[in-house]
Amino acid sequence: MPVWYNGSNVPLNSFQTSGSSPTERDHRCRVGILGFGTVGSTVARRLTGPDPIPQLKLTHISDRRARDKRARQPEAIASINWTERFDDLLASDVDIVIETVSGGEPAVDYIRAALLAGKSVVTANKKVMAHQGHALLTLAERQGRQLRFEAAVGGAMPIVRVLGNGVSGDRVTAFSAILNATSNAVLSRMEAEGCDIDEAIASACASGYAEIDPSLDLDGSDAVAKLVILCALAFKLRVDPDAIETRTTAGIGLESFKRARLRGGTIRQIAHASYDPAQGILTAWVAPIVVATTSIFANMTGPQNAAVITCAYAGDIVLSGQGAGGDAPAVAILGDVLEIARDRAAIVPAPVLVEPREIRGLSEQSFAEAV
Amino acid sequence: MPVWYNGSNVPLNSFQTSGSSPTERDHRCRVGILGFGTVGSTVARRLTGPDPIPQLKLTHISDRRARDKRARQPEAIASINWTERFDDLLASDVDIVIETVSGGEPAVDYIRAALLAGKSVVTANKKVMAHQGHALLTLAERQGRQLRFEAAVGGAMPIVRVLGNGVSGDRVTAFSAILNATSNAVLSRMEAEGCDIDEAIASACASGYAEIDPSLDLDGSDAVAKLVILCALAFKLRVDPDAIETRTTAGIGLESFKRARLRGGTIRQIAHASYDPAQGILTAWVAPIVVATTSIFANMTGPQNAAVITCAYAGDIVLSGQGAGGDAPAVAILGDVLEIARDRAAIVPAPVLVEPREIRGLSEQSFAEAV
Repeated sequence: MPVWYNGSNVPLNSFQTSGSSPTERDHRCRVGILGFGTVGSTVARRLTGPDPIPQLKLTHISDRRARDKRARQPEAIASINWTERFDDLLASDVDIVIETVSGGEPAVDYIRAALLAGKSVVTANKKVMAHQGHALLTLAERQGRQLRFEAAVGGAMPIVRVLGNGVSGDRVTAFSAILNATSNAVLSRMEAEGCDIDEAIASACASGYAEIDPSLDLDGSDAVAKLVILCALAFKLRVDPDAIETRTTAGIGLESFKRARLRGGTIRQIAHASYDPAQGILTAWVAPIVVATTSIFANMTGPQNAAVITCAYAGDIVLSGQGAGGDAPAVAILGDVLEIARDRAAIVPAPVLVEPREIRGLSEQSFAEAV
Repeated sequence: MPVWYNGSNVPLNSFQTSGSSPTERDHRCRVGILGFGTVGSTVARRLTGPDPIPQLKLTHISDRRARDKRARQPEAIASINWTERFDDLLASDVDIVIETVSGGEPAVDYIRAALLAGKSVVTANKKVMAHQGHALLTLAERQGRQLRFEAAVGGAMPIVRVLGNGVSGDRVTAFSAILNATSNAVLSRMEAEGCDIDEAIASACASGYAEIDPSLDLDGSDAVAKLVILCALAFKLRVDPDAIETRTTAGIGLESFKRARLRGGTIRQIAHASYDPAQGILTAWVAPIVVATTSIFANMTGPQNAAVITCAYAGDIVLSGQGAGGDAPAVAILGDVLEIARDRAAIVPAPVLVEPREIRGLSEQSFAEAV
């Protein structure tokens, strides 16, 4: 029997969790959070705080350390139904599961199980979407449910929506973007303060923009996963993240900035992709490169994300926004949840993806000035 | 009996227009264009050209001068079913009507009639959406059809989508934007060339970015209609365009630019709105103002649009893109058509709008430096 911890601290049968009889049940969409870390707790605070979202009702929270974490929460969050077992969330009456567990495993199994249980899912998990996104989107379509992932790429910058629908009347030929806010905070700090990379990392950690070990941010792994997700949206391509050329930002020093300045620029970690559908050639890479000081990328300081999307008919579309901090992913997640709540029966066809015939890297093209 | 002119030049009964028996009928969404001007003809070329959109089939074109215009078209477009009577389009089997007739009347009646006939509608008409948008969206919802209007604001910059859905997980507190590409082309030309406004207008006309009489662009009327549409999306406000303070750009001369340069800036036509929901106070205006040379607005040269959307939780989101030329609105229209084609039964609730308690203009605030 599933056991819930609710506000009264009395374990309840899950069939009693809604706290209201069927006749009283309101029409708000019922939301459960899976994983109560920085992002999950920010979403919970938004949904229970002074500025709540009328269409949504947070009813369940599942976390492996539910008992400990619940004890430290304010009443509005502690009184939600908490459980340590994901199966309890699956058996509950939530309509939408917000998945904020990081890493590939076991998150992919959680998402699959939630879709199979008839829930729609909103995820912030770039690793899962980069590796298994297509299979999961296909499952969601088959189940008549939705899987949305705006928070997996670009923080509060709505690039998934813009590439997925916003430019669908055009044809994307290329995009360049700052997709890793931590690297951007570190590089722009080095530029502004003239400090070395270790000091800049320490400062980003202190501001909450970096993990103690930001190696996945600096080495490009994080940005590559996002790049792969965007290649599926922009070009309908299935790309293996391991096939993308990646250069680390960890070796950038003050000397690199001096040389960049002499060339009229500064340094940013850029993710780039362009696709020639006639030849089947994808050019894609993540690397710290010299960007002109007049470019939008040079203007991004702190934990910002930005993208320049080049289209065949209407030229460039530029987008930027906050890339890190708890609020940015929470905003992206809640936008997705609201989109599902608006039309729970919406048809969202899984994209039909092909593999590029050839993938080229940074070394095969001349316009980007590698550091 | 409705009379169509088709490729064979033989008038056909509308029940024969699909050119195929029910058993052969393909699953593409059937699209009709109402109004064959610059935008309508660009959409027609996109749908019949070398890079067509697989999900869409252009089947009908309605224009008051159908006979004349059809005669000047290439075979791929001339062979579509043409009619001079809008009623014929209503009686046809098109799923989606693309409305590109400019001005308030009779476009509003056309849109209403199309929705009542069970068609979904995609419009580029800012005047209709600013004045009657809410009533039409309510009608669309009641009919179980969709009315989409990305092309009414911002050209290829997907601001309707971003404000409507992309930032729905946040709360918009203010936005500032370049919404009139013609004014921007004129002002940025004056800045770059040091020419007077008449020369700049002549140059914009020659490039196809301005009408012979760009007075609705320069006096702010065009941007005000767009501002009102964005206030409904961003703040859920119903605003009378006549209540918005507007200052004309027509009086800007070289002296104005000199003074702006002395203040470290340049001049752009900016539309601004901010809303205090607690007080019910909307501050909104359209005016040529001094913008810092480091701002995104100063970087917009030519027929560009740009917007800075300020949100309560995740800060600023910046967006820019091509604002004028036939391709930009066509891209926005086709994106909307594809969104409808993806899920023709989608539920798109009409927004619930309130009126602001008070509307303030440019004079009541200090941060914008009026020219």
